[in-house]
Amino acid sequence: MSEQDERHPDDVQQHLREVQELLARHKVVEDLVHRQDMPRHELVENLVHKQHVAELQAKLDSLHPADIAYILEALPLEDRLFVWDLVKAERDGDILLEVSDAVRESLIETMDPHELKAAAETLDADELADLAPDLPPEVMLDVFQSLDSEEREQLRAAMSFPEESVGALMDFDMVTVREDVTLEVVLRYLRRFDELPDHTDKLFVIDREDHLKGILTLESLLINDPEMVVGEVMHKENVISFEPEDEADDAAQAFERYDLVSAPVIDAEKRVIGRLTVADVVDYIREESEHEILSHAGLREEEDIFASVWDSVKNRWAWLAINLVTAFIASRVIGAFEGSIEKLVALAALMPIVAGIGGNSGNQTVTMIVRAIAMGQVEQTAMQRLMRKEMGVAVVNGLVWGGLLGLLAWFLYGSASLGAVMTAAMTLNLLLAACAGVLIPMVRLRFGADPAMGGSVLITALTDSGGFFIFLGLATLFLL
Amino acid sequence: MSEQDERHPDDVQQHLREVQELLARHKVVEDLVHRQDMPRHELVENLVHKQHVAELQAKLDSLHPADIAYILEALPLEDRLFVWDLVKAERDGDILLEVSDAVRESLIETMDPHELKAAAETLDADELADLAPDLPPEVMLDVFQSLDSEEREQLRAAMSFPEESVGALMDFDMVTVREDVTLEVVLRYLRRFDELPDHTDKLFVIDREDHLKGILTLESLLINDPEMVVGEVMHKENVISFEPEDEADDAAQAFERYDLVSAPVIDAEKRVIGRLTVADVVDYIREESEHEILSHAGLREEEDIFASVWDSVKNRWAWLAINLVTAFIASRVIGAFEGSIEKLVALAALMPIVAGIGGNSGNQTVTMIVRAIAMGQVEQTAMQRLMRKEMGVAVVNGLVWGGLLGLLAWFLYGSASLGAVMTAAMTLNLLLAACAGVLIPMVRLRFGADPAMGGSVLITALTDSGGFFIFLGLATLFLL
Repeated sequence: MSEQDERHPDDVQQHLREVQELLARHKVVEDLVHRQDMPRHELVENLVHKQHVAELQAKLDSLHPADIAYILEALPLEDRLFVWDLVKAERDGDILLEVSDAVRESLIETMDPHELKAAAETLDADELADLAPDLPPEVMLDVFQSLDSEEREQLRAAMSFPEESVGALMDFDMVTVREDVTLEVVLRYLRRFDELPDHTDKLFVIDREDHLKGILTLESLLINDPEMVVGEVMHKENVISFEPEDEADDAAQAFERYDLVSAPVIDAEKRVIGRLTVADVVDYIREESEHEILSHAGLREEEDIFASVWDSVKNRWAWLAINLVTAFIASRVIGAFEGSIEKLVALAALMPIVAGIGGNSGNQTVTMIVRAIAMGQVEQTAMQRLMRKEMGVAVVNGLVWGGLLGLLAWFLYGSASLGAVMTAAMTLNLLLAACAGVLIPMVRLRFGADPAMGGSVLITALTDSGGFFIFLGLATLFLL
Repeated sequence: MSEQDERHPDDVQQHLREVQELLARHKVVEDLVHRQDMPRHELVENLVHKQHVAELQAKLDSLHPADIAYILEALPLEDRLFVWDLVKAERDGDILLEVSDAVRESLIETMDPHELKAAAETLDADELADLAPDLPPEVMLDVFQSLDSEEREQLRAAMSFPEESVGALMDFDMVTVREDVTLEVVLRYLRRFDELPDHTDKLFVIDREDHLKGILTLESLLINDPEMVVGEVMHKENVISFEPEDEADDAAQAFERYDLVSAPVIDAEKRVIGRLTVADVVDYIREESEHEILSHAGLREEEDIFASVWDSVKNRWAWLAINLVTAFIASRVIGAFEGSIEKLVALAALMPIVAGIGGNSGNQTVTMIVRAIAMGQVEQTAMQRLMRKEMGVAVVNGLVWGGLLGLLAWFLYGSASLGAVMTAAMTLNLLLAACAGVLIPMVRLRFGADPAMGGSVLITALTDSGGFFIFLGLATLFLL
């Protein structure tokens, strides 16, 4: 990190610390001024203060937009807005694209329509489409009017595709060539560019009507004799292309499977309309996995860690409400057996074990099935086989762990029949968990819903209420 | 998909279905033969059978190794091994690299040392290092001896780095050039290659001692005048490079942040020793997020969906055992209050609600904190601020949801004081959950442990036992 001319993965944290230090020094001056009751405008005039701000600004100017985004996310709201004000206006657009949704909202709130329009105008059509949902409609309208007709068309196209589709991820930057020219001509053509679009690892070979004829990788362009013709060296077979309606998930898997850097997006007539790059795919994969992890814990979206208590409550309340309902139902199941518990209070102490282990085991099953479905490796026909296996696992676990707990219950409460009820209830609840764990995602899949959604909530609700019911029911039948 | 010359993201599922169909047809013949008690060798001679096998083999030969891996993962063990036998031996290595760990084990088990050695010898040093842990030691020794000294050195280097480091992800394929030659010379040099390493978007500019002097992107090579000298057009500043000891996580974030396709890996003296590509990074991100999702549900590793019951039990038992212990402790907490429950049996029905909501709320907190720590955006200094916020959220949720439940309890059991105890217990347990949710990952971070590990287990254990203790304790103090 001592080398000035090199960037290192930890650098962004170093940058963050430097910015925090500059902010702290700035605050010391401000505090001093405040305590001496110096009027605000004198503070602004203050030389030391000016120097700190200039230093901070210089630091920010030297940073990559993604690094500034990272720093903004890591700063409390007040510092964040102070830094945001110091960022050069022409970089606003790029940075807004990089920050998380929650932080983006906090930044956009402080910008006036004029600033927002200026920021939006620095962006490409596909980037604009990403930002559009967060911009006030009047700003979007203004921006739209300032675009030329080709960009308008692109923006309209990019915004017309659902969020999880290839169309929403694609960009419109690409280099196309004809198949009847020599590589020498292509090389000369490329020299007229000031820069190539990001992630250009291949040129798209098209005919007069934009139909995709093949791809010319930069590799083939570089290793082949310049006298050769594009049509001779281009790849015609096994060209991986996407349609804008394809699911982003499938495209991400294809990028991963075939190690792609970029790929053409074509319409139904095989006309090239855009391009998908690995950068978009990586962002998508990261967002998806984050979304999955967050929704596992019942968080609606990534939280700005410096969000207000109120914003956090809003982000989390839905899950807690659902949980309250399921917990309440489970509680009523217990309520129905209050008579039994009164007679044998040991039941109250043992029942949460049956419910808890069932929930955990069910979650293991559902996680595994959902992953297999997501990979497209489970067909409805495999259901019977999976069900048999999961039942087998449930019986083994039920007998082993349930048996162990039965022995413990016997030892603690001196009742062999209580132990037997415990073992039976555990086994039955694990079987219930296994069935539900296979059936819930499979049924959701058959009805075309996302198999992952809410599986864990449903399982836990079932195994809680079911566990209480089975255990207390068996106890009432056999022990009282 | 009607076009023969195009690959489409859904194709792999189409391939899978075709292979399954061919297998099914093959089995019909086998069944027929079996029912007629035809000896096995006659089946092999059978013409129809031969034709099916040939068709299947032709299909497999046409597929990308990653697609074959996908198909192998989706087939039950028996079919999987049948298909595996039909795959050309020289592709075995590539396919073994692509399949999941569990499936790889199942394939390697059936191969003899000779086949394994042949498969391993088709791989590069960095790929070999990935496969090494799964190969029998005697095979590895054989392979090692067949390598030349440079490859041995690379293999040794690749295997010496921990799994989560840049060193473990890097490869050794790269093109290097000197800074004092013209672009024309570089272009001529590249034409001598039969192919460039995958993901070559930049050449590394080095001096005689392999020190990194800069990078020459293919873009600058292509858009600049061939008469220019490499030193003039190469990037010297803001070159992003990694060291093999760097954490893979940081490297992945840098690839994502700066949209990299490849980057040099250098040693402490700035000598180029390898290269990191986006393909390795994408695989790493995918594996990490999968690992996170699986370990959330307490699965040790990705499960082969056609694994035996016994393998599945082994994959899942550790989590269930831990859960059993925590559930048992919670059960003993309840046991300590059996006298109170005997007197007021409503407590038994209400207590799981207090524990459950606490656990869910704590998991929300811990998920958020772990994510923020993983991004490097939370320093120890931010702990106080986060703690205050989480406490605030807990108090709001406790009063709102706890209050609602208190009213329900009052209504159900006709006791206002029971309702008040319910509300108080909910609020206290949510506060406990918030503290633990912030402290557990923070403390793990301070002691250098992975902040994510087991946070959810600990939280649930605490809020279960704590919730029962707080609720039953308050009830014993104020209601009895």
